Parts: sequence; structure tokens; C-alpha cells
Amino acid sequence: MCLNMSSEGVTFQNILEARNRIASFVARTPTYPCVAISQELGADVYLKLEVFQPIRVFKIRGAFNKVCSLSPKERENGVVAASSGNHGLAVAYAAKTLGIKAIICVPEKAVEEKVKAIEGYGAEIIKFGKDYDEAYSKALEIQSKTKTAFVHAFNDPFVIAGQGTIGLELLEDVPDLDTIIIPIGGGGLLSGIATAAKTIKPNIRIIGVQAEGASAYYQSWKARKIVELDSVHTVADGLAARKPMALAFGILQKYVDDILLVTEDEIGQAVLKYLHEARLLVEPSGAASLAALLFKYHLKPKEKIALITSGGNISVSYLTTLLKLQ
Amino acid sequence: MCLNMSSEGVTFQNILEARNRIASFVARTPTYPCVAISQELGADVYLKLEVFQPIRVFKIRGAFNKVCSLSPKERENGVVAASSGNHGLAVAYAAKTLGIKAIICVPEKAVEEKVKAIEGYGAEIIKFGKDYDEAYSKALEIQSKTKTAFVHAFNDPFVIAGQGTIGLELLEDVPDLDTIIIPIGGGGLLSGIATAAKTIKPNIRIIGVQAEGASAYYQSWKARKIVELDSVHTVADGLAARKPMALAFGILQKYVDDILLVTEDEIGQAVLKYLHEARLLVEPSGAASLAALLFKYHLKPKEKIALITSGGNISVSYLTTLLKLQ
Repeated sequence: MCLNMSSEGVTFQNILEARNRIASFVARTPTYPCVAISQELGADVYLKLEVFQPIRVFKIRGAFNKVCSLSPKERENGVVAASSGNHGLAVAYAAKTLGIKAIICVPEKAVEEKVKAIEGYGAEIIKFGKDYDEAYSKALEIQSKTKTAFVHAFNDPFVIAGQGTIGLELLEDVPDLDTIIIPIGGGGLLSGIATAAKTIKPNIRIIGVQAEGASAYYQSWKARKIVELDSVHTVADGLAARKPMALAFGILQKYVDDILLVTEDEIGQAVLKYLHEARLLVEPSGAASLAALLFKYHLKPKEKIALITSGGNISVSYLTTLLKLQ
Repeated sequence: MCLNMSSEGVTFQNILEARNRIASFVARTPTYPCVAISQELGADVYLKLEVFQPIRVFKIRGAFNKVCSLSPKERENGVVAASSGNHGLAVAYAAKTLGIKAIICVPEKAVEEKVKAIEGYGAEIIKFGKDYDEAYSKALEIQSKTKTAFVHAFNDPFVIAGQGTIGLELLEDVPDLDTIIIPIGGGGLLSGIATAAKTIKPNIRIIGVQAEGASAYYQSWKARKIVELDSVHTVADGLAARKPMALAFGILQKYVDDILLVTEDEIGQAVLKYLHEARLLVEPSGAASLAALLFKYHLKPKEKIALITSGGNISVSYLTTLLKLQ
């Protein structure tokens, strides 16, 4: 491995390397200038369409960068991860594509539909524990007992560098971009994009978004130290992290200009806005950046602003509920 | 006007001119390689995302090309069109953008939601007659009495050339494309794209799609003469033309390799497939090409095939009905 670790953990060079490593496996997604929302707000609003990735979510960038960086010997032993959501899907998909064995640990009460989707990519599922933390401990135990490589959802420089390739593409497409709004769950997406974007254009504004019911990064950023929440509650399961990890938090502290909090109702309205104005079906975590733009962000006239439309794995029951409430 | 009319009515040069004329008003839409559908079918499936146009439909290409080609004197007198659907929206939007007066004739029983959308772009609405044909006659009467320019939905070389710009973009994005599947309503979309694509790549296959309940072009093409239907019935209102017009039919006869018919149920399934696999909300007319690919077209292995995802103006009630039926 040729990772040049900087003091921050992830360098611009790491992100350039990631782009080459993952290019043949992930989509170079469009940056879509959304006329309807732009005209409504009097700004230039660009959507970075990670919903168009295979498996419909940005997570495959980081997963492929990690798995592709393993040595032939490590690949033989396979990979292990903990997640019943998009990260689990991404690791399973990447492992299947590369012909590697994957074990995904999920909590015992994980949603069956999601577990089936992960199994659909050929991963071995291990159900363990009452919540994510216990499934995570199980994954670490498997990793320490076997020689399986652990793929963390965000606390890994390869994963962060993979997500950072979005920042390269955004600034290629819109070199004079003023602002990027990025949802924060584990923090890997924001850390990666911010590292790329602030290197290319140091005066770009990086705005993070969290759900009010899952504001660990927001509180930690305000307190300038890691704050752990007892519990989190949000429909945006991709944003439901209880505690920042040191690597992503360090990068975030360096680069983020502001963090905005959005309500569950605002997230739902943003999902509908995507459907009505952009004809896109976006998951709640993926709609959080639009919720922040619509309800919390103070736009400057003609500001050029990109929203990370991070994923599209929404449940049909949530969607029909939203449509009925209109 | 410098239109060089060929024997077919629309030349490749007209389409190149159209591109320059409309470039600052319409989106250069993405050609999206849809991994999920491609993997399922064992082919390379590309979606030409006209749902990302302002007003969410390809019709603005033709409308802008027509309206932009008017002389300053003609522009002063304004434009008139007949349509309670996407064409009416497109003409109203183009006229508003260019600061021109627009009159749109709609049948007396036109859906109020659609009429409001057209009015929303500042057009004057004239409700007249029991169906499209009577509203169309009213529009012609207005045009002959005043000096207003008539903008036909498809039987106009400028409109066809405008839609043809989609063909230029497709072949730029995927030069080795094998096949394009295109919905046929009035025939302007197919005529334009076929003229562009067959000029650039003469061996490309052009496949048209109609609804079983609105098969005027299919029947005319089989009979080698224009066949008029007494009535048409389809949820895909963009495909509901009773009779081909000579200009588009002439081009279609020259270029089309096959026309496939799809059922209402197949169209509904294609709308859901777009939603589930591509996270796109597509109107029934826009989903017809996917319906043909899924249920009627015989794919060759690894065929590179583009679907014209022509529009996204779907009603929420139709969508919720589809979701409930799953």
C-alpha cells in the first residue's frame, strides 16, 4: 500500500489515486443543473446524482477503493463489514464484482428487505446483537480471529478517499462552484469531498447537514470535542450515527464552514421536492442537503451551490406515506 | 428563414442549426448508462434523460427552435398552438422565456391541473370544442385571422429539427450505439432523432414504440399509407395521436427499422421499473421505450441500446395507483 498519510489522515493525492483505482467499477455520475429549483430559489443549484450509482448510493466509491487496495493475499481471505444498510450493500457488491468473499454482520432485528438485498450480492450474513454496535463488535471479532480485512463504513482513509472522488468530479463540472451541501452520517462523505474541494478551491464553502434527532457531529463540532449521543432517531437511516470517529471528525473540524440541522418533516418535504421538481426518487439521507437548502441555508443571489444527492434506497412504504400526506 | 428543405422535409443541416439556436435555452441532457437494467438484460442500456429538461419534457427543443426562428416582426405578433399537454407547456414556456405572447387552445374538458400549468407560464388559454381536433381548428382560425405564428406539435420542420438535436447528443455520448428506441405520438421525436442518427451512423437501428390502443403510425407503416383511427385509448397521453401527418410519416417510412406495440399494463410496469431501478419518475409516454425493451424487443447480447426517456409529467394519482397495485 502506498498511502501517504498526512497529519489529517487523507491527502488530495489519495483521492486522485482512488479515482484511478475505482474508475472501471463506479459511475462518473452527472452533475445536473436543476432548472426548476434554481429558478425558484434564484440561484444555480446543481445536483450530484449519486442515486445513479450501481446499488444507487455513493457508498460504492469508498467500498471499491478499500477492497481494490487489498493485496492479493488479503483478497483471498475476504472482507468483513458491519451494516444493515447502504454500506453493507456496497461492500457486498464490490466483493462480488471482484470475486472476493464478504461477510456482513447485521443486528438480529435488521429489516429483512435490506438483509435480502445484501444477500442478493452473494454476501454471507451474520445476525448478531441487539443493535449496530453489537453487530460491529462481532465483525471486529471475526476480523481478529480470521485474516479477513475489515471494511469500516467511514473511519478508514481509503473509504474517505473513495468518497472524495465526488469532490473532484464536482469541481471539474462546475469550476466556479461557491458552496457544497453534504449530508453527515458517519462523516466519510463530507471528509472526502471537503478534502478534494478545499484543495482545488480553498475558498469554497462546505456545509454539513444532520438530522435534528441525530446531531452527534453538530454537537461535537460546536463543543470542539467528540460528543457521544445515547440514542438517535431519524427516518434518514444513513445519518443515524451516535458518535463521530476521530479520523472524519479531524478532517471535518479543519474544513467545514457550517453544519445545519433539519427536521424529519423538512426531510420528507425535500424527498417530495426531488420527486416533483427533479423527477428523482431520493432516500431521506440523500434529500437532507436539499432540506437544508430549502429551509435552513441563507442563499446569496446567484450563488452556485451543489447538493450531494447521495442515495436513492428509499422504502416504498415511506414513499407512499409521503404521497398520501400531500 | 434559411431552412434548406430536402425532399424529406428536414435535413441534417437543419438539426445542426437547431442545436445552435436552442443551446442557451434547453438542457444538454445526460445519457445515463443504467447499470441495474443493463445487468439484468445483459446489454448496455443508456437512458437519454429528457425528464431533466426545464418543464421535464423533450418538447421544449422543438418549441424553442420554432419560436427562435421567427422574425422580429413575427415575434411581435406572438404565437398560437393547440395542446392541453406537454406541447402547450413547451410553447408557453418558450414564449415566456423570449418575451413573446402565446395563445394556447385547449378542449373545453381539458384537465384543469394541466391548463393551470400552462397558464402558469403566462399563456392565454382559449377553451374551445369537445376534443383536440376542435381546439386545433380554433387555433388555426386564430392564426388565419390574426398574424400570429402557428406552432404545430410535430408537423413542422423546425419542430422536428429541434427534437433531432437529441440524436446528435446521443451519438456524441455513445458513438458506437447499435439501437435507439423512441416513443411515437405525433412522430416528431422519432423523425428528428432518426434523421440525425441515420446521417451520423447509417447502420444504427431505429425502433418506434406505440401503445396498442393508439397505433396509427404502426398501422400506417404496415399499410404503407396514412391510416386514420376513429379513436385512441391510452394512459400515455403523449402517444395519443389519431393520424400520422405527411411530413413525419415520410421521414419515418424512410428511417424506421421496426415499430413495436406495448400494452397499458406493460407501460405501467415500465414506469415502476424506472422508479425502482433508475430512481426516475417518468411519465407513461416516456416509459414506453422501456416497456418495448422489456416486453417486446429481441435484444442481441451486449447490444448498445438507448431509450428515449422523453418526459416526466406524470400525475400523482396515476403514480399512487401504480404503487398500490404492486
